Amino acid sequence: MAPRTLQIACAGLGRMGKRHAHNLLHRSPRSSLVAAFTPDPVEVEWAEINLVPYGVTIYTDYDAMLAHSGLEAVLVSTITTVHAEQAIKAIEAGKHVLCEKPLSTDAAICQSVVDSALQHPTQKVMCGFSRRFDASYRDAYAKTAAGVIGTPSIIRSQTCDKIDPTGSFVKFAATSGGIFVDCSVHDIDLILWFFGATGSSTVKSVVSSGTVALHPELKDYNDADNAVGIIEFYDGRVAYLYCSRMMAAGQEDTTEIIGTQGKLVVNGQAQRNLVGIFDASGSRRELPAHYYERFGEAFVSEVNEFAEACLDGTDLPMGIQGAVDAVRIAKALQDSLISGKKVRFDEKGERV
Amino acid sequence: MAPRTLQIACAGLGRMGKRHAHNLLHRSPRSSLVAAFTPDPVEVEWAEINLVPYGVTIYTDYDAMLAHSGLEAVLVSTITTVHAEQAIKAIEAGKHVLCEKPLSTDAAICQSVVDSALQHPTQKVMCGFSRRFDASYRDAYAKTAAGVIGTPSIIRSQTCDKIDPTGSFVKFAATSGGIFVDCSVHDIDLILWFFGATGSSTVKSVVSSGTVALHPELKDYNDADNAVGIIEFYDGRVAYLYCSRMMAAGQEDTTEIIGTQGKLVVNGQAQRNLVGIFDASGSRRELPAHYYERFGEAFVSEVNEFAEACLDGTDLPMGIQGAVDAVRIAKALQDSLISGKKVRFDEKGERV
Amino acid sequence: MAPRTLQIACAGLGRMGKRHAHNLLHRSPRSSLVAAFTPDPVEVEWAEINLVPYGVTIYTDYDAMLAHSGLEAVLVSTITTVHAEQAIKAIEAGKHVLCEKPLSTDAAICQSVVDSALQHPTQKVMCGFSRRFDASYRDAYAKTAAGVIGTPSIIRSQTCDKIDPTGSFVKFAATSGGIFVDCSVHDIDLILWFFGATGSSTVKSVVSSGTVALHPELKDYNDADNAVGIIEFYDGRVAYLYCSRMMAAGQEDTTEIIGTQGKLVVNGQAQRNLVGIFDASGSRRELPAHYYERFGEAFVSEVNEFAEACLDGTDLPMGIQGAVDAVRIAKALQDSLISGKKVRFDEKGERV
Amino acid sequence: MAPRTLQIACAGLGRMGKRHAHNLLHRSPRSSLVAAFTPDPVEVEWAEINLVPYGVTIYTDYDAMLAHSGLEAVLVSTITTVHAEQAIKAIEAGKHVLCEKPLSTDAAICQSVVDSALQHPTQKVMCGFSRRFDASYRDAYAKTAAGVIGTPSIIRSQTCDKIDPTGSFVKFAATSGGIFVDCSVHDIDLILWFFGATGSSTVKSVVSSGTVALHPELKDYNDADNAVGIIEFYDGRVAYLYCSRMMAAGQEDTTEIIGTQGKLVVNGQAQRNLVGIFDASGSRRELPAHYYERFGEAFVSEVNEFAEACLDGTDLPMGIQGAVDAVRIAKALQDSLISGKKVRFDEKGERV
Repeated sequence: MAPRTLQIACAGLGRMGKRHAHNLLHRSPRSSLVAAFTPDPVEVEWAEINLVPYGVTIYTDYDAMLAHSGLEAVLVSTITTVHAEQAIKAIEAGKHVLCEKPLSTDAAICQSVVDSALQHPTQKVMCGFSRRFDASYRDAYAKTAAGVIGTPSIIRSQTCDKIDPTGSFVKFAATSGGIFVDCSVHDIDLILWFFGATGSSTVKSVVSSGTVALHPELKDYNDADNAVGIIEFYDGRVAYLYCSRMMAAGQEDTTEIIGTQGKLVVNGQAQRNLVGIFDASGSRRELPAHYYERFGEAFVSEVNEFAEACLDGTDLPMGIQGAVDAVRIAKALQDSLISGKKVRFDEKGERV
Repeated sequence: MAPRTLQIACAGLGRMGKRHAHNLLHRSPRSSLVAAFTPDPVEVEWAEINLVPYGVTIYTDYDAMLAHSGLEAVLVSTITTVHAEQAIKAIEAGKHVLCEKPLSTDAAICQSVVDSALQHPTQKVMCGFSRRFDASYRDAYAKTAAGVIGTPSIIRSQTCDKIDPTGSFVKFAATSGGIFVDCSVHDIDLILWFFGATGSSTVKSVVSSGTVALHPELKDYNDADNAVGIIEFYDGRVAYLYCSRMMAAGQEDTTEIIGTQGKLVVNGQAQRNLVGIFDASGSRRELPAHYYERFGEAFVSEVNEFAEACLDGTDLPMGIQGAVDAVRIAKALQDSLISGKKVRFDEKGERV
Repeated sequence: MAPRTLQIACAGLGRMGKRHAHNLLHRSPRSSLVAAFTPDPVEVEWAEINLVPYGVTIYTDYDAMLAHSGLEAVLVSTITTVHAEQAIKAIEAGKHVLCEKPLSTDAAICQSVVDSALQHPTQKVMCGFSRRFDASYRDAYAKTAAGVIGTPSIIRSQTCDKIDPTGSFVKFAATSGGIFVDCSVHDIDLILWFFGATGSSTVKSVVSSGTVALHPELKDYNDADNAVGIIEFYDGRVAYLYCSRMMAAGQEDTTEIIGTQGKLVVNGQAQRNLVGIFDASGSRRELPAHYYERFGEAFVSEVNEFAEACLDGTDLPMGIQGAVDAVRIAKALQDSLISGKKVRFDEKGERV
Repeated sequence: MAPRTLQIACAGLGRMGKRHAHNLLHRSPRSSLVAAFTPDPVEVEWAEINLVPYGVTIYTDYDAMLAHSGLEAVLVSTITTVHAEQAIKAIEAGKHVLCEKPLSTDAAICQSVVDSALQHPTQKVMCGFSRRFDASYRDAYAKTAAGVIGTPSIIRSQTCDKIDPTGSFVKFAATSGGIFVDCSVHDIDLILWFFGATGSSTVKSVVSSGTVALHPELKDYNDADNAVGIIEFYDGRVAYLYCSRMMAAGQEDTTEIIGTQGKLVVNGQAQRNLVGIFDASGSRRELPAHYYERFGEAFVSEVNEFAEACLDGTDLPMGIQGAVDAVRIAKALQDSLISGKKVRFDEKGERV
């Protein structure tokens, strides 16, 4: 008799939802994907072929899915605008919840999910910042915590997507919350994590600048296709960010943690795999085409560790409050991009 | 109703057998590990804790395991000396077989497994050359086959293990077949694969030299802790090898495929992960500590693709005859190491 | 009869002056070092041994040196505080002038040198931004100008010195102008150069933040040991900077020029030479210990190209006005570090 | 009064001779190029423009050049076939001699130069193995000698030229001595140097194999465009070689010194400079186009250190006997390429 597995449902079967469903089915030994929700007929069709044969029940109504017999947990992977509502519903229905980032592009709404989670302390609620589950980031974190680089004092972090000549992200700009909220939120989460490991990580101010190098129409959305930002902390430490939609070579997410005795660089030399190509153009390496090629394994670890915590009642590898903080800071950077002004916070995290 | 899975048993629960059992249980969605065999009481104890809870039946008798009701396939991961016998028994019992490399350190015994497989053409029989399943080698192969480097003309390939100060491999020397059979057999398999993709790969001669830099006692076994070899092919192409037990930094398995219009290098810059460490000693990267840290994912792909071929009746990703050829060439290199003489083959592959 | 050489004097024989004198004597075929000036008895002693045997006359009075018979040019390499005065004196005495950077830490004083140069248009006056003479930066510039990366839109540039546990730079803080003026002025010069190649490079605003990770006493000088900054340009482009005195591994000056079709990275993987070291700590490379180990060859090119322009009456490889602009921007970044406020410029380059 | 300089002549003004003449004129402060010899009218014309203005006397007769008043030293850079004769003449005329490698493609003729040198012990005679003067090789040697990698046990070394689609080296095959004598002689010299640093370096046997991947006409000269070889030493150590005319990306000369406690790699990641290029093909680096782009600085050091030894009467940085040994071993490898047989040496270095 195999040990019991987590009875989980996947809400949303878009690009990322499909991947989560696949991971839950085939790469998460302690999870059983029993249900999935999508209102989209095309996604339902995909599910008929790819999920139903494995015994997954498909719902086109979220509440019906929540009522699936024996359901213990929900992975929310729908569009961002309904994350919070669906997460809260699931929490209130007594389910553990793993929600794709961000909980919302609005910090207050993010906070409402956290508040709901706090009222249900026996349930596990996690927002999926996938990089926290990446082997290289974890190694860097362990080394930082072990004092390998002394005290981390400066962090540089960038999230840079491969250029998409079709500009598909432009139409996404209306709801994405902007490039800092969409991309840099990962970097901000990492910065809070790494600085938090060795002291306080209370933000004092942020300031940013951006440019529209390729897509002038982004200006209509107060957005940019490349942007940089600086985050000051109350303890004097500083982080700086770069986000871009314009990397010609591929996905290039790099983080440097610079300490008083050394530095760690995660992904300083982006690469798709271990193949070097030597030809008339020199020696080269290909890069990952997108974030999932870079972080695919991290998403697998994420669902596995979530399942473990739910089944064994152990602590989640990360708290939920950070998901609010990261969005709040990202939003302030986005505001600075528009206003050209520095945004300041008091020591309680409120904007002043 | 989930589609049916391959009912498979794992023979041998040593270091590698444990890993295979884990992969079959947790990382192979189309396999069901139903049985395992080990004569070793310590391994049985491990299995009680790690396999029995998942419904795996443990056998201390190989034949009894073969008789397990509904069993369709066996993964042979016992010590090399019994690989061939167990593989043949399983084939004759009508099972699909995935056998750890090498089938034997003796080419004639290897051939006996192949002969048995040929008499049971509906069963899948594969020898696990794990590097064939590594994403980087596959990418290099695809690029080679696509003509990216013109005609491959020279291959350099090395299998270098991290230094083991305890010299545990010394006692293994008596049965390993020697460093070429134990280590370089992987490189030889790769060379036959890559050269085979673009023409003939009939070996004409081999010659080798070795040294005992750290473990003089290896001389008693006619073995070396570092060795190099050259393989000449009938079509004029050449490959050269290096194998070592003495890498200070970690596992370093590198292959260069040099063609008339470019070259591909697999693992030219060995690395454990994507973390760069900058300290007073400069900038550095850690290396994998052993082959499983380097090729762990390839072992997962191996069992998954084997299961697929068994269940769907499709072709295996590699034939079985190569497992004999690679051992025959490795053995000749080992002989040359001892005799100091070149070993020649006729065009049918027989030594002259 | 060999062609005539440039009769040049070296003013200042400190750390950098000694290097310049050596280069003029031994590595600049078209220069003849005929005189040197230093008020420092220890430096005079050094000159007796290292310069006098080559026929160099040593002066302890700058004006006397200027009056050296046949003198055509002066390389000013004294302390920053006298750069401008000495440069202007030399210009007014009819000499060509190569002045170490910066002309001054005060933009108005810098401008006075430029004004003097403008009044003597037949004389060559250059401020030595050595990176402009580095082979890798030049290659990157040529590729940028050739359109290899499309339109450069974002530049990241850092000047990071190896950590100096003695903190010798702290006492230098009183006169250095601060970390942006001392270190980032190089990056700013590069940014103006690269952006200038493909359009306007009029600065709109700067903002910065810094931290004192190692040397709290720097606060007394309104300085930092690590700082970051953002520069906005009127055409919408953006550059961002990092400067540090705290690199554990060595000198690490890196520049990324990110364009609409690609990016160029200069020194993305800092290295002292081509040696890789593999040991129990992994695989590593050493870094240059200081800027002269990194840029030594560039200083040689600098004096050679200056001599060429003087002798042949050809254009200098770079104009002098940039030396004012770079200091003005660096000073604004330093001011922002102190005030915490963004500094804005009008389109004529005046602070508003 | 400047200290006296070495009065030196350059014999031969071909591709390499021009470079030497330039270095002696402009980059060697202690050398004075006073004379040059070439029988070639085109080269004389070049010399009229590039050397005569600097006071260099041009001779079309070697003996006349030797008789140049005050001449102290000769740099022999003519075609290989006359190296030995001209070197011996210069030695007998009382001159110091720096001779381009190889002294001859015939070991006996090489030895005649050495014999002549031994009869004139007060004169400096050096064969220019340029890699000995390369900063990276020297750093690797210093680290090896300092015990950083324990005892060096295995060396891998390759000399790989950029592919030349015109195949100009084919017509050179008749006189080059073959690919091992032309290319690998550098690697052999390095191996003798590195192994010699830590023990004996007496060669026991060599064996080699080659292929003609691009230029079948090389077979007419018993030559190959790619070849590999193994060298066994009497103390049990082993080196292995690769030489090629077929590198698509550029010059790629790599050496690995593998010891009992670590390894050093020189040029494991070949690169032209410090520029990384990121575009749709990935991230890449250009490679040096030819050996002079890679080793140009080493050639400058070579003439400078030779001049120093001549002027100051100090030891040369390397002995002359190695130039014979390296050719003898290279020749044996070339013979093995043709015969397919191992070539053995007795402990005195004689072939058996």
